[in-house]
Amino acid sequence: MTCPLSTITWNDFQELGLSEKAKLLQESGREFHVMFAQQFTRKRLDELGALATVIRRMAKSRDGRRFLGQCLAHQRAMLYFTQPSSRTFLSFCAACQILGMQIGEVRDPAVSSEFKGETREDSVRTFSSYFDLIIMRTELSGLVERMSWVLSQSERPVPIVNAGSGKDQHPTQALLDIYTLQRSFEDRGGIDGKTIMFVGDLARGRTVRSLSILLTTYKNVRQIFVAPESLQVGDDILVQLSAAGTDYEISSDFRKSIPEADAIYMTRVQHEWDVKGETSEDSIADYSFTTEHLKLLSPDSVLMHPFPRKGEISPDVDHDPRAVYWRQMRNGMWIRAALIASMFRCDDGITAESQSIGK
Amino acid sequence: MTCPLSTITWNDFQELGLSEKAKLLQESGREFHVMFAQQFTRKRLDELGALATVIRRMAKSRDGRRFLGQCLAHQRAMLYFTQPSSRTFLSFCAACQILGMQIGEVRDPAVSSEFKGETREDSVRTFSSYFDLIIMRTELSGLVERMSWVLSQSERPVPIVNAGSGKDQHPTQALLDIYTLQRSFEDRGGIDGKTIMFVGDLARGRTVRSLSILLTTYKNVRQIFVAPESLQVGDDILVQLSAAGTDYEISSDFRKSIPEADAIYMTRVQHEWDVKGETSEDSIADYSFTTEHLKLLSPDSVLMHPFPRKGEISPDVDHDPRAVYWRQMRNGMWIRAALIASMFRCDDGITAESQSIGK
Amino acid sequence: MTCPLSTITWNDFQELGLSEKAKLLQESGREFHVMFAQQFTRKRLDELGALATVIRRMAKSRDGRRFLGQCLAHQRAMLYFTQPSSRTFLSFCAACQILGMQIGEVRDPAVSSEFKGETREDSVRTFSSYFDLIIMRTELSGLVERMSWVLSQSERPVPIVNAGSGKDQHPTQALLDIYTLQRSFEDRGGIDGKTIMFVGDLARGRTVRSLSILLTTYKNVRQIFVAPESLQVGDDILVQLSAAGTDYEISSDFRKSIPEADAIYMTRVQHEWDVKGETSEDSIADYSFTTEHLKLLSPDSVLMHPFPRKGEISPDVDHDPRAVYWRQMRNGMWIRAALIASMFRCDDGITAESQSIGK
Repeated sequence: MTCPLSTITWNDFQELGLSEKAKLLQESGREFHVMFAQQFTRKRLDELGALATVIRRMAKSRDGRRFLGQCLAHQRAMLYFTQPSSRTFLSFCAACQILGMQIGEVRDPAVSSEFKGETREDSVRTFSSYFDLIIMRTELSGLVERMSWVLSQSERPVPIVNAGSGKDQHPTQALLDIYTLQRSFEDRGGIDGKTIMFVGDLARGRTVRSLSILLTTYKNVRQIFVAPESLQVGDDILVQLSAAGTDYEISSDFRKSIPEADAIYMTRVQHEWDVKGETSEDSIADYSFTTEHLKLLSPDSVLMHPFPRKGEISPDVDHDPRAVYWRQMRNGMWIRAALIASMFRCDDGITAESQSIGK
Repeated sequence: MTCPLSTITWNDFQELGLSEKAKLLQESGREFHVMFAQQFTRKRLDELGALATVIRRMAKSRDGRRFLGQCLAHQRAMLYFTQPSSRTFLSFCAACQILGMQIGEVRDPAVSSEFKGETREDSVRTFSSYFDLIIMRTELSGLVERMSWVLSQSERPVPIVNAGSGKDQHPTQALLDIYTLQRSFEDRGGIDGKTIMFVGDLARGRTVRSLSILLTTYKNVRQIFVAPESLQVGDDILVQLSAAGTDYEISSDFRKSIPEADAIYMTRVQHEWDVKGETSEDSIADYSFTTEHLKLLSPDSVLMHPFPRKGEISPDVDHDPRAVYWRQMRNGMWIRAALIASMFRCDDGITAESQSIGK
Repeated sequence: MTCPLSTITWNDFQELGLSEKAKLLQESGREFHVMFAQQFTRKRLDELGALATVIRRMAKSRDGRRFLGQCLAHQRAMLYFTQPSSRTFLSFCAACQILGMQIGEVRDPAVSSEFKGETREDSVRTFSSYFDLIIMRTELSGLVERMSWVLSQSERPVPIVNAGSGKDQHPTQALLDIYTLQRSFEDRGGIDGKTIMFVGDLARGRTVRSLSILLTTYKNVRQIFVAPESLQVGDDILVQLSAAGTDYEISSDFRKSIPEADAIYMTRVQHEWDVKGETSEDSIADYSFTTEHLKLLSPDSVLMHPFPRKGEISPDVDHDPRAVYWRQMRNGMWIRAALIASMFRCDDGITAESQSIGK
């Protein structure tokens, strides 16, 4: 397999828009590298969601687990996580293990060769020498793009999956959010026509940015952004929503908007990116969901959060059936397994097996 | 499977005595969560020891290893170790691998989400989203209890095994000690009626505390506690021994007691818990076992140590056949494999397979 | 299996020369422990290279991968790396996984029992209690020798593979270098009669030292050492080359020697061992390979580097077909898999299977 990315120079690639970039990342209708959320079309989101559901159901039985565990046995995945993360790490780890993949990992750059002065490019090419897939999380925004391009030029064009890069992109988080919405609305006509409300730190949370853009691939989705002024969603996002004809609303009144929402997506205030004290304790308290707000929430709405949470949702809310954030977390494992299975062309085999079991 | 622990509030649970707590941790005659040593009855200790021996013998052959390796294939265990430990960690790791379980791990909280301010409860619920078993070691005494209760209330009541919590409990260490005694005395009528001598830091070593109490489930076991006054075993233990009718002796004369013992259990002085200089170099030297003491030891006695050692047993003693501490260490792997196999209901299958091989 | 090393005292062993030591490390024509490069005879280098090629070709097919993955399923390897290394670590990790071995690891001594004051000997005996193979990398020069001897005396004489010890030995690096030369010259009559040129920090790089000595087992190999005076190869090596009748040359003229070489082995300047400022920026610049030097290189020569590189080879050179250092890196995985397979006596089975597939 070769990736179309191998046919372009680095300088030319950088000058492309996202949609042109996206085309160079696909191969035979599947993702070769996973770089940003915008590369997933509505069709792919539907396919991956359907595959995740097949895998999730298969994994309930011992025979199903055994079948899945053979799919990628004797393939090896490298988890290269230089930015701290337990949730994303363990979720990818579990996704690989479901498919039988073996895992190598570098989580602490201090124990790696980098202290001997090696470049990141040499490190990633090293990983590609020993592994069949690289899943990477990094604090550097452009690194995944660069490395995907580097590997595509090399003798071993191993695929890369972006597990979070800088403030910018976290595409598999967007996938799991979409999958959670798909599941939540599966008896209500799907995501089309729903109202999704984002709350909290909308300026800097990369999950909100990615999800908001992905939702433009659905029809008539209304988006409400609720945040204090200093943490409101960026104009760059709003420009894209306008261009896509999306109906959106900017608000700072949390209580008022709750009844309108089909899904409320709460987010954590990202203190760690604070430059000039954008956030205060007040801003957290005013945009937190407590049991009191449950009364305002419509009976078939859902409450989501990408986690970790820091007080934006009271643990007392956890037992309400509309609180789907724990299920959302587990969805991350299923959709990541589906993505990897598809990238390695096991999707058809898995679907066929599930149909033969169903008969 | 549901755990009876799910039926009680946290406040009510905390007020129960150990024996009432123990009942809420069992399900169909097996441990659902493993929280403290006292939850193991004599019957369970016998069953688990017998199963450990079956597994140990089976693992000698290639076919046996292969059978065992299928038992829990496609189940995943999370090792969550925020307190340093290589021995317990690797022993659990090996135990899981013997049964074919796949492993995820968080050993360094600095690389995890906790630095973003997540609560421990949210972290553990996260692990339960991706794994089928959580093995945890922590410096906080009550954490395992709390987490077991939290998970039992949740949609995914994944079992927890305590791999050491604070100064308090280390139940699988007690299991491996009991298993070592069972094996050591298997041709001498078992543990009943034997004299067990504890030496060293008896005030703070959680292994001594757990083992001493567990030995009350055997008949006519005599216990001798040999330590300097500042490190003698706590009154809370002695009260329990008296209540159980156990014959015990307090002593500071190491040499005098050696010939009486069927097993000598040496322990390390736990400097790390020192508050007011309880320990001195003298106290170590006076309670150390050297080749000179081998002459005092009866021919069919055994010498044990939970390790790590720091000078309490001279390496020159290692080659004496009565020094069983290396075997004791390996027993930890077998008894942990037996425990996990039993919790996941593979015990009957393993025993049946071993009998069919034996025929 | 027992290792002949078990028959000798530690003091006697230390007084032996390398060739006498080597005999005590072999068992039934295979390595029991892997301690230093000099223990590999020409015959063993040929056998291991041939086996690595068989494994490499087998791994191209799904069925081949599956067969290999059964060879050592249910055996466990311990990777004990107290000196930072990602390349060697991941390469051994992949090699074990190719053969189906399960892995445990201790990479950061801070999370291990050592902080409780345990000796290294007790730590390694602990690992031998739970694992079937120990792969260790350490900053202490004599540690692998000592530990191999200690385990050979114990009840569980688990084999040890040296993955780098101090400034001294890194035998599997030498193996992968030899394997790379074997592959590079397979259509040109093999390694015999070739000219190998070493460039850079020849005083302290353990890979150069090991490879230079191993090359004396081949016929008529000429060796050229190109370095600034302060970093030239040690007299101890030159004495051994003279004793073996090897033709060698000492030079500081990099450009002049390039056309004569069949293989150029570039090395990194090892700043981390600097005591009195042996190295300068100049010394790096004068001994670096750039695209300009490609013109001087003969058409069927090869350019090697053990990696990490720090500027000794320009990335612009990477695309030249004579730059084989990425292949060299991957060869490390294959030759390590071959070595482990051979140590565990899977070599005949693998070769037989490959022949039956070939028919």
